[in-house]
Amino acid sequence: MFSERILRVLERLGGVSAATAVRARLAPRTEPAPPRFRVEREADAGRIAAWWESRDPAGRDQLADPHTIATLPAYAANIENMIGTVKLPVGVVGPLRVNGLHAQGDYLVPLATTEAALVASYARGAHLITRAGGASAAMLSEGVLRSPAFLFADMVEAGTFVGWAAANAGRLRVAAEATTRHGKLEAIDPFIDNDTVFLVCRYTTGDAAGQNMVTIATDALCRAVLEGCPVQPRAWFIEGNFSGDKKASYLGLITGRGRKVSASVLIPEALVRRCLHVGVDRMLDYARVAQLGAMLSGQIGAQGHYANGLAAFYIATGQDAACVAESAVGFTRMERRDDGLFMSVTLPNLLVGSVGGGTGLPAQRAALELMGLAGTGKAAALAEVVASLCLAGEISIMAAIAAGDFTRAHHSLARTRT
Amino acid sequence: MFSERILRVLERLGGVSAATAVRARLAPRTEPAPPRFRVEREADAGRIAAWWESRDPAGRDQLADPHTIATLPAYAANIENMIGTVKLPVGVVGPLRVNGLHAQGDYLVPLATTEAALVASYARGAHLITRAGGASAAMLSEGVLRSPAFLFADMVEAGTFVGWAAANAGRLRVAAEATTRHGKLEAIDPFIDNDTVFLVCRYTTGDAAGQNMVTIATDALCRAVLEGCPVQPRAWFIEGNFSGDKKASYLGLITGRGRKVSASVLIPEALVRRCLHVGVDRMLDYARVAQLGAMLSGQIGAQGHYANGLAAFYIATGQDAACVAESAVGFTRMERRDDGLFMSVTLPNLLVGSVGGGTGLPAQRAALELMGLAGTGKAAALAEVVASLCLAGEISIMAAIAAGDFTRAHHSLARTRT
Amino acid sequence: MFSERILRVLERLGGVSAATAVRARLAPRTEPAPPRFRVEREADAGRIAAWWESRDPAGRDQLADPHTIATLPAYAANIENMIGTVKLPVGVVGPLRVNGLHAQGDYLVPLATTEAALVASYARGAHLITRAGGASAAMLSEGVLRSPAFLFADMVEAGTFVGWAAANAGRLRVAAEATTRHGKLEAIDPFIDNDTVFLVCRYTTGDAAGQNMVTIATDALCRAVLEGCPVQPRAWFIEGNFSGDKKASYLGLITGRGRKVSASVLIPEALVRRCLHVGVDRMLDYARVAQLGAMLSGQIGAQGHYANGLAAFYIATGQDAACVAESAVGFTRMERRDDGLFMSVTLPNLLVGSVGGGTGLPAQRAALELMGLAGTGKAAALAEVVASLCLAGEISIMAAIAAGDFTRAHHSLARTRT
Amino acid sequence: MFSERILRVLERLGGVSAATAVRARLAPRTEPAPPRFRVEREADAGRIAAWWESRDPAGRDQLADPHTIATLPAYAANIENMIGTVKLPVGVVGPLRVNGLHAQGDYLVPLATTEAALVASYARGAHLITRAGGASAAMLSEGVLRSPAFLFADMVEAGTFVGWAAANAGRLRVAAEATTRHGKLEAIDPFIDNDTVFLVCRYTTGDAAGQNMVTIATDALCRAVLEGCPVQPRAWFIEGNFSGDKKASYLGLITGRGRKVSASVLIPEALVRRCLHVGVDRMLDYARVAQLGAMLSGQIGAQGHYANGLAAFYIATGQDAACVAESAVGFTRMERRDDGLFMSVTLPNLLVGSVGGGTGLPAQRAALELMGLAGTGKAAALAEVVASLCLAGEISIMAAIAAGDFTRAHHSLARTRT
Repeated sequence: MFSERILRVLERLGGVSAATAVRARLAPRTEPAPPRFRVEREADAGRIAAWWESRDPAGRDQLADPHTIATLPAYAANIENMIGTVKLPVGVVGPLRVNGLHAQGDYLVPLATTEAALVASYARGAHLITRAGGASAAMLSEGVLRSPAFLFADMVEAGTFVGWAAANAGRLRVAAEATTRHGKLEAIDPFIDNDTVFLVCRYTTGDAAGQNMVTIATDALCRAVLEGCPVQPRAWFIEGNFSGDKKASYLGLITGRGRKVSASVLIPEALVRRCLHVGVDRMLDYARVAQLGAMLSGQIGAQGHYANGLAAFYIATGQDAACVAESAVGFTRMERRDDGLFMSVTLPNLLVGSVGGGTGLPAQRAALELMGLAGTGKAAALAEVVASLCLAGEISIMAAIAAGDFTRAHHSLARTRT
Repeated sequence: MFSERILRVLERLGGVSAATAVRARLAPRTEPAPPRFRVEREADAGRIAAWWESRDPAGRDQLADPHTIATLPAYAANIENMIGTVKLPVGVVGPLRVNGLHAQGDYLVPLATTEAALVASYARGAHLITRAGGASAAMLSEGVLRSPAFLFADMVEAGTFVGWAAANAGRLRVAAEATTRHGKLEAIDPFIDNDTVFLVCRYTTGDAAGQNMVTIATDALCRAVLEGCPVQPRAWFIEGNFSGDKKASYLGLITGRGRKVSASVLIPEALVRRCLHVGVDRMLDYARVAQLGAMLSGQIGAQGHYANGLAAFYIATGQDAACVAESAVGFTRMERRDDGLFMSVTLPNLLVGSVGGGTGLPAQRAALELMGLAGTGKAAALAEVVASLCLAGEISIMAAIAAGDFTRAHHSLARTRT
Repeated sequence: MFSERILRVLERLGGVSAATAVRARLAPRTEPAPPRFRVEREADAGRIAAWWESRDPAGRDQLADPHTIATLPAYAANIENMIGTVKLPVGVVGPLRVNGLHAQGDYLVPLATTEAALVASYARGAHLITRAGGASAAMLSEGVLRSPAFLFADMVEAGTFVGWAAANAGRLRVAAEATTRHGKLEAIDPFIDNDTVFLVCRYTTGDAAGQNMVTIATDALCRAVLEGCPVQPRAWFIEGNFSGDKKASYLGLITGRGRKVSASVLIPEALVRRCLHVGVDRMLDYARVAQLGAMLSGQIGAQGHYANGLAAFYIATGQDAACVAESAVGFTRMERRDDGLFMSVTLPNLLVGSVGGGTGLPAQRAALELMGLAGTGKAAALAEVVASLCLAGEISIMAAIAAGDFTRAHHSLARTRT
Repeated sequence: MFSERILRVLERLGGVSAATAVRARLAPRTEPAPPRFRVEREADAGRIAAWWESRDPAGRDQLADPHTIATLPAYAANIENMIGTVKLPVGVVGPLRVNGLHAQGDYLVPLATTEAALVASYARGAHLITRAGGASAAMLSEGVLRSPAFLFADMVEAGTFVGWAAANAGRLRVAAEATTRHGKLEAIDPFIDNDTVFLVCRYTTGDAAGQNMVTIATDALCRAVLEGCPVQPRAWFIEGNFSGDKKASYLGLITGRGRKVSASVLIPEALVRRCLHVGVDRMLDYARVAQLGAMLSGQIGAQGHYANGLAAFYIATGQDAACVAESAVGFTRMERRDDGLFMSVTLPNLLVGSVGGGTGLPAQRAALELMGLAGTGKAAALAEVVASLCLAGEISIMAAIAAGDFTRAHHSLARTRT
């Protein structure tokens, strides 16, 4: 009746007999906690030294090493309560040839990861793309969302509110854009659920990923609404949890959130065979199964492992790694074409910037500069490189699985000792 | 007809008139690429120095700093093509009191992020939880999945295959478990789509996150199937893209993938008001709207920003950051209870380990040791701490939005200059 | 390892040993089939009589009864290969008071169903709404979709194509609207996946549900595109399976497909108690659980049983019952407000018309006329009545479950003999 | 800023200026309603005559025609407040050859619909399948769900409860199965969200669709739990809205709800060309696009129009038409194989029975008997015929779209007058 698996779980939990003991473990405890670590915005060497004083010096040496201490001021605007830095190894993939609307060139792509075989796998795909003449890539749209919510007395007020906002859209745009040099309000889409209104505000954000920028602009927009609108909400919230910020969502898949980029490549069958040790037909067999598996298990979109490349790239280049949750969504397609393998990826939710966030930190900026993509005017090219990188990763993993190499690669590169 | 936004995008793309120029930019280029960076598994100081020789010394100083070079051997099993390390600042949150089935104590939680205000926000939530007596937390189940796919000639063979596998399940378990000291095969769930069979294999993985472990075990399982089964597939693949590895999925939401953990706290209204500057009713108003927004926009589950805490924690402690894509899914609930605020989080897909992956790297291990959660026997406690951390983050962000503080917090802490 | 349930299924299938027998049953059979029933569009009494000649006369008496034969010409435009009619019992619910933007009055609502207790349940909810002063209802938007797909040689051509379409949107509208008196093209939203373009065409359709109307209009639109556009697709399809026609989808949930209607009511607690035998708090407890269950099990939206009311109403009034698949999606909300129970439903995908489809068939038209909602100018009111009906159904079922009456109601009304 | 479409909607709503008038229309109205129609279970000729007395006699003649009045007692157990019957024309498709585990033969399939072209389209597909030797079909699993929810004081009690239920599963099964002759409890899967437990109870239901059966059985199961379990919930509900009853859900897609059936056919290319006027390659092109469209628009599964065939079949044969909402989910696949077209459908959620519900009504039973599938022992065969019918519909619509015939078919058969 109950599956064995559930029974084993329950057994581990101790079962009914252990309920009293379990209750004791889970109950609130009122004894005083150690003094809390007060929020400190400044990253100060003395304070960090003091904090480590009573703690494990080996830990201090790894987190608060001299190099970190020497670059402390660089971190001041990016963190609170700083006690050191964590180091992630960076491997290089490439040259990855990208023929993009914005990106043009052979890029060395830095990836920060602690997972063995990941860099090797992306490097294999990148090599193949480059040999095939490069990935065609284009940023198709952009638009970061904020979606404030407004609660009204009833549907009539909700409708009146939306009507007023539409009639005064110009004024709202002015208010929003006054807060930012680079952000532009592109569209407001109202969504009404009876007495509740979400205003989905869509911005372009220049070269920044722009999540803070759109928050501040939308706050100003909301205040302009509240000042001018004849009906007032009984409550309002700057974000109605509708925008998909840091969450995979169908809204993001359908309308895009962040930069939407597509990349593709056409690889002659001979090259597929030589580099990937597998034929095109078998790749296509796997593509069909992989798409079926994605749909049957309820994934948003259908792809292999965008998250691997995105996380490694985001961390290496100072992007917001939490955005992997929303960015790792999209479609990978394979088709036979012109006696070769056509392959494309489309990622509708890339949250990447060449300025802002962690892109100015010392190592992160150095990583961006390896690609020549640090600073103003580079975000669109950056997005196209990321999509091309994901394309490389998809080719490599799908070939590894199709050829039966996947496990062996993990065995030898990961040297797993489990 | 077409929205303004689309028109602006098209304008930027250059429109029809620019098609020829665009075509030229996106076409494959056949000129030879620079020599590729051959995959190197060893992280060797001499090789890294040589690589940097022709490159920007400022970049080298940040990525290949002396501390990194001194600890090079530590990274050998975790990356290929290493050229240095990227440094992420680590801030501390806590003490966060956790009353868990496995975790018991007041934890200092390290978070690695480059997003200002994140540590401060989690710290605020952690402080509140601790003052309320701590978070009750329990790991409810565990099970990492691999889902090989088998293609047959027809449905009859597919059925025969599943029948054979069921009759020989014991033999398959032996084959799978022979590859690992810590992994246990808990269940095999067959999924049939006409001629295609997915075998969803569910394992416990001891104290490791276990993604490689289950790949190797499942490979052995598949080979045992293929050796013994009277019908042979026309193709098979070690992963049918069904398991949700590095992808948010409904399968993960419903059946769990990795460790499923729930944490909750009951906070007296007075404490809510004092620490969060907002009343319980308004928090509940927002909780309703946030849940509505999550559902209306097609998110998997309903929560605020698990991804923020998870990414920062995964990076700081050597977890696989790509797994944020699947882990940042679950449910946050709020209810009024006993004149206070009841709040819970349930995360069905935590992929965390206290051994393996990046947990042995120097700084990452130091971060784990800050919590006393490095090494064998600590993974379940680690998962409970992570869930409690997410609970802290949910309280803080939801209160900030409910109280109208959200934008201000970003303004002052992020010192945004966009 | 394998769950008991799977083992029992396999056992029933016969297991490996039965594979040969199973194979024989499932193999193609080449013996000639009886002559096929050629597609006949006309519903002719003589032909129907001939068809039944060699068949069971009892069946003929029920399907091809004299009343049906007497009204045969009425069905000619609605079916092929007609052999009779199936009769579904119609029960009446009401008066249901609707205070709508378009619907105003106390409606007797006809429901066709074979499920005992369904009419009684909706009647209870309708009674309660009417006693509370009626449901407030408003059609919030309308727009039936068709989404042709175009495949190009590459992304450049895809972009050029979209650019041309945007520049010539006026011409496309003229072409589309020339095919219909009532349909209006409201928007074209292009969706690009690398070399593939979906043009999501959104129409208003007057008083018809309009699925055929938009097909024909979109066909004309596509032909206008193909005539004028400088780049030609390698293939195109009138529907790219993107529009959500007869399928629940997140696109429909987010953007609406068909008429989007919301209805709500505020019920004093005393009335809730008297009519539903349950308190508001318990209703709210259940609402929370029901929403949680909807999200955890991966439903689109969160509601109780819209499908019951919709199917019964669609069948009774000549709507397309297949559209229940897409219409039975939306949100039911409950909140305590002003010492009473606020309850709302929002259905974004109602496909209903007061003309066209089956609305002109004799009994169906009579059912529409019971409400005074047959013919031109009534579709918006019809949609508001449907939403109010769904509201009645939600109140009733949620109260039945909250009060613990649900099973008893089924027991006594269904007189189940299972 | 706001899209034209939204602006047009707002204009129609009247805008801000009309708010007062709109408010008046939507406000509750307290004048007394006409006397309500009291719920009557018996379908009595005198009562129906009296009801129609003050109403339109033309309507009465169509709904309460003599044939209906003569068969009144047949409807007594299936509806309340009966005032007549609605007639839907029934067309026949076939012979449809099914080579199933349970269904074996050439079936004439009755479809009740008011949508022109639907029967013709399914007939075309059925003819093609039969000429190709028939559809291979198999019921792969069965299991109707009920998912009661239990709310506890905290997670410890929730865990204790599940532990007790697992230890006493045998007792619970006895209690559940005591209520039914045909229902068997197959599995109980607990789902815990902190303090809330859903027990997903899965039953086989013999030859009935079984929705009432499982409600009654689960009610008994719950009462057995409550009697025996040492911890008591603070509330419980017979259905936690988790089971997917009458709702498309990922739970249903992944685990099945109702009967899961797969059907497939292999069609030689020559036959495809002759009957469908399209080549296999073009069909495959469309299959790829249709799958992409399904995924991009957030559908559950990927198929063309199962809902059309299901609704028409469910209505004709006395199934619960509301279940179309959950049944119209699954996967349609196409592949080139052995120089022909392989095509399959898999529907995980068929809710069909050969007994119970509306299957005993006169015309509905006659429709079932046309196929020889009325009464005991026929449900599995019925499910296989339904799946084969859906396969016929998928072939036909996909070919019509691929060949460019789709619009023309609607034009000529629908004789649309919009």
